[in-house]
Amino acid sequence: MTTAADNLLCPEQQFYGPDSEKIYIQGSIHPIKVGMRSIKLSQSYRIQGEEFSTFPLYDTSGPYSDPSARLDLAEGLPCTRDEWHSTRNDIEASPTGIPSPMNGRSPVRAKQDTPVTQMHYARKGIVTPEMEYVAIRENQQLESWIEGFCANGKSFKPVTPEFVREEVAAGRAIIPANINHPELEPMIIGRNFRVKINANIGNSALGSSISEEVEKAVWACRWGADTVMDLSTGENIPQTREWILRNSPVPIGTVPIYQALEKVGGVAEELDWEIYRETLIEQAEQGVDYFTIHSGILMDFLPAAARRTTGIVSRGGSIIAKWCRAHNRENFLYTHFDEICEILRAYDIAVSIGDALRPGSIADANDEAQFSELKTLGELTLKAWEHDVQVMIEGPGHVPMNLIEKNMQKQLEHCHEAPFYTLGPLVTDIAAGYDHVNSAIGGTLLASLGCAMLCYVTPKEHLGLPNKDDVREGVIVHKLAAHAADIAKGDPVAWLHDNLMSSARYAFAWNDQFNLSFDPARTRQVHAENSSDKTGNITEDNFCTMCGPDFCSMKKSQEVTGQP
Amino acid sequence: MTTAADNLLCPEQQFYGPDSEKIYIQGSIHPIKVGMRSIKLSQSYRIQGEEFSTFPLYDTSGPYSDPSARLDLAEGLPCTRDEWHSTRNDIEASPTGIPSPMNGRSPVRAKQDTPVTQMHYARKGIVTPEMEYVAIRENQQLESWIEGFCANGKSFKPVTPEFVREEVAAGRAIIPANINHPELEPMIIGRNFRVKINANIGNSALGSSISEEVEKAVWACRWGADTVMDLSTGENIPQTREWILRNSPVPIGTVPIYQALEKVGGVAEELDWEIYRETLIEQAEQGVDYFTIHSGILMDFLPAAARRTTGIVSRGGSIIAKWCRAHNRENFLYTHFDEICEILRAYDIAVSIGDALRPGSIADANDEAQFSELKTLGELTLKAWEHDVQVMIEGPGHVPMNLIEKNMQKQLEHCHEAPFYTLGPLVTDIAAGYDHVNSAIGGTLLASLGCAMLCYVTPKEHLGLPNKDDVREGVIVHKLAAHAADIAKGDPVAWLHDNLMSSARYAFAWNDQFNLSFDPARTRQVHAENSSDKTGNITEDNFCTMCGPDFCSMKKSQEVTGQP
Repeated sequence: MTTAADNLLCPEQQFYGPDSEKIYIQGSIHPIKVGMRSIKLSQSYRIQGEEFSTFPLYDTSGPYSDPSARLDLAEGLPCTRDEWHSTRNDIEASPTGIPSPMNGRSPVRAKQDTPVTQMHYARKGIVTPEMEYVAIRENQQLESWIEGFCANGKSFKPVTPEFVREEVAAGRAIIPANINHPELEPMIIGRNFRVKINANIGNSALGSSISEEVEKAVWACRWGADTVMDLSTGENIPQTREWILRNSPVPIGTVPIYQALEKVGGVAEELDWEIYRETLIEQAEQGVDYFTIHSGILMDFLPAAARRTTGIVSRGGSIIAKWCRAHNRENFLYTHFDEICEILRAYDIAVSIGDALRPGSIADANDEAQFSELKTLGELTLKAWEHDVQVMIEGPGHVPMNLIEKNMQKQLEHCHEAPFYTLGPLVTDIAAGYDHVNSAIGGTLLASLGCAMLCYVTPKEHLGLPNKDDVREGVIVHKLAAHAADIAKGDPVAWLHDNLMSSARYAFAWNDQFNLSFDPARTRQVHAENSSDKTGNITEDNFCTMCGPDFCSMKKSQEVTGQP
Repeated sequence: MTTAADNLLCPEQQFYGPDSEKIYIQGSIHPIKVGMRSIKLSQSYRIQGEEFSTFPLYDTSGPYSDPSARLDLAEGLPCTRDEWHSTRNDIEASPTGIPSPMNGRSPVRAKQDTPVTQMHYARKGIVTPEMEYVAIRENQQLESWIEGFCANGKSFKPVTPEFVREEVAAGRAIIPANINHPELEPMIIGRNFRVKINANIGNSALGSSISEEVEKAVWACRWGADTVMDLSTGENIPQTREWILRNSPVPIGTVPIYQALEKVGGVAEELDWEIYRETLIEQAEQGVDYFTIHSGILMDFLPAAARRTTGIVSRGGSIIAKWCRAHNRENFLYTHFDEICEILRAYDIAVSIGDALRPGSIADANDEAQFSELKTLGELTLKAWEHDVQVMIEGPGHVPMNLIEKNMQKQLEHCHEAPFYTLGPLVTDIAAGYDHVNSAIGGTLLASLGCAMLCYVTPKEHLGLPNKDDVREGVIVHKLAAHAADIAKGDPVAWLHDNLMSSARYAFAWNDQFNLSFDPARTRQVHAENSSDKTGNITEDNFCTMCGPDFCSMKKSQEVTGQP
């Protein structure tokens, strides 16, 4: 164990409390085991006819929350997925591949002309280990509860591996899982599954180091990030990414044009297809699971963007726009899109088609530039699907509450039900310092209408680079948004989680309340600071400092109704 | 100046920055002057044909943000409203009134059988100083902008005193303004005006002191609270309230049953109408502007409440339920509602009819108990209006995103368009530690659909009593929610505010961005910590640490489009 690791890997109980246990569920089709975190409740709660004395949680933290796991940040996590595929004969060692300087593994790629994407297998009727993994994961061991809750005609059912396969085959969901990221615990993004969140990390030319960024990535997963994007633009881009990938149990996304731009000294005009292509392959062989690619911004759309209040606010989009103007040529990410897809399908990298023209202000929301590009994103979706490449579509941005629904409608209309992945949207422009809340507000509404993944925003948005505290805050308020959207969509597991929390609240079972909250460490600490016992011990009295003993409504309510 | 005052009254610039100036707008009908805060912008911005080099802000901070104001917390604020009404002959000294121990003023009340409510005057066709005040305040000196922006057929118009009168006469809006709270700067609550927010403060038996609570009240106003509720339930309830009232420029609300319960030693069964009535009059003569009264919870509704996951979560509601059960008699706040209204109209106290049966968990949202009570709130609304008493209706609570709209529809349907005043709603039960965000999410949606005022929730909700930091956090995220709702409703002033911010962002005008944000102190501080200049000076470079110079999209966008 390195010092960095010791520093990073807080003991389990600091995060989740002493009543949390790491469990693993075995697959029945494939030799997989799916990690979850099971909470031991202090008492048994009866919810709609079923008793619960434990509650298993969807867990993004990977081995970091397993006290028995042996971890070494300098070497990375175990390459578990390689074992799942030890017998597959559609991949080969990459002829150009450079072994990982951390674990020595050599990169693989598809054999000539053989797609190795989850979409390819799904369309062929094959249920992969990844598909079975996400099915087990989504159900949280609550199959019988889901069946019972939905007995009376509701649309929710436990997720089966076959249902996962159908959704991936139809393009309605993606499992970003590069064959060179064997450390990955697969997850699924699609509107018929739990809403997911992404955390952005990465340095800029003005700050941060490799160890800080790796620490932020692991930290984000521990608080609930379902994927992490490494948006580094400063020094040591490849090394930072290698450390993040080797230590990440969640899919890693990047925006390859950032590194390509660094390769040409930051001068957008000097970019070309060859440099970009080389960058894609380098990142593909390192194991990046999805790429944001701004193929949809066309020269035709630039006049509409020029009329805006805030022009082009996508970094990738502004680079491409500059290149197009300088050369007076169409976006090379559009003209080379077929070749891009050929690369992606050789490693199973999902494409997150970037919204270069997303609105960066309320005044620009739902404008011509935005929706023109969205149509193009739909065309590119069909093209990627021809190559069996998994696709999601990036979305805004800044959008007022009353215009959010239209974004979902248009995305479904133009993009053939490919999953929608949005940044917020922020519902006002003036919330600097509180933009994580701003984003969670718009994100909850959009996700409740069908958006599949929310990109987090931190309190530093518009002001600077987030630190660890900002990452925690950003992750948790977007978990909140995603969970609230799941509830709005009628997800039985999310509903059960809330119902257990409220039952624990009504029973004054403080430990259960802490363990069932998004942030057990914070709730425990805040309550301890506010409990009458100044030593920090949790009082078992049936009231709290908010109301005191005579004004506790729940206590009185129980006296009146005879419950619980 | 007392030490407490010195401690409290931070210099103006710490809050708002050096470019903020307190201004006063004179009335044209009445001898009033309306305080606002004008921001000096670093450059002129052209928005839809009009130039802006300053921007006036709606200002809830009262004299506390006026550097020339002389303040003494032990004496209270000047009794300005008494001067407005020096000639009125419908009020008289209260025969039972006790002079304020702080400023020596004797309480007044209406002469026998003469209502003195804003609703009474409005129905008589009289435009009061309070009505003119709120009209000026709502417009923020932007009448010409509003006219121009809405020229093409939109429904927004500058607010006129006559429009205020019509809305108050119709019961669609209220101006809570007790004739014994002459320190008040009037404000209006109604869905055809800016969305407002309330901050709850108050001690419990287990914590806090008078000076802490006064400090929190003033602090809440400075960050943007439009009203403050003093929910004290611990020691020194009357003294705490006196200090808060005398120092508050915003309306103060209370829940009188809390004090009544203290008078009977915390034993709900021993409450009776006489004790409650005496409490109402005591608080009325001190100057409380609105009372939460739980008149709508009836014995018939208790069985439905008993079937719930979390029973009755309203403190007042649980007290009443306990009383009803003990005596097997109907709620005395219901049976004595006419007498209550007679008291309220003698001082112009608005009634905020409490939702004793609001859902306290997702499982209980929109249930029979909640909507049965809502119907009764509608009946009581009509009864209060017969007495010319101003009414608002309190609302939930915990409600999932997909059920929020129905709350607004039902409230409009049952409560005759009386303003809706809600606590959130929270959109999940599991967000302890982050419930301010949880509440802001539901609140934004509900307010964008017509809810007139949001009660803030702090990060301490469900865990303990908020401190000053929690108050600031709670106020600002609910300002965010209210403002985002204003934008969704098409408010031209809110839209202009956002557009100025985005224009400043696109121009890299950092100081303007700070001054136009909800929390200039925080944005300034965060940016300084993250700017390349480690001394904290703001760099004037056209990029920030989030992206660094080569990856700034706005910089590139300008290079492409030639703007600004």
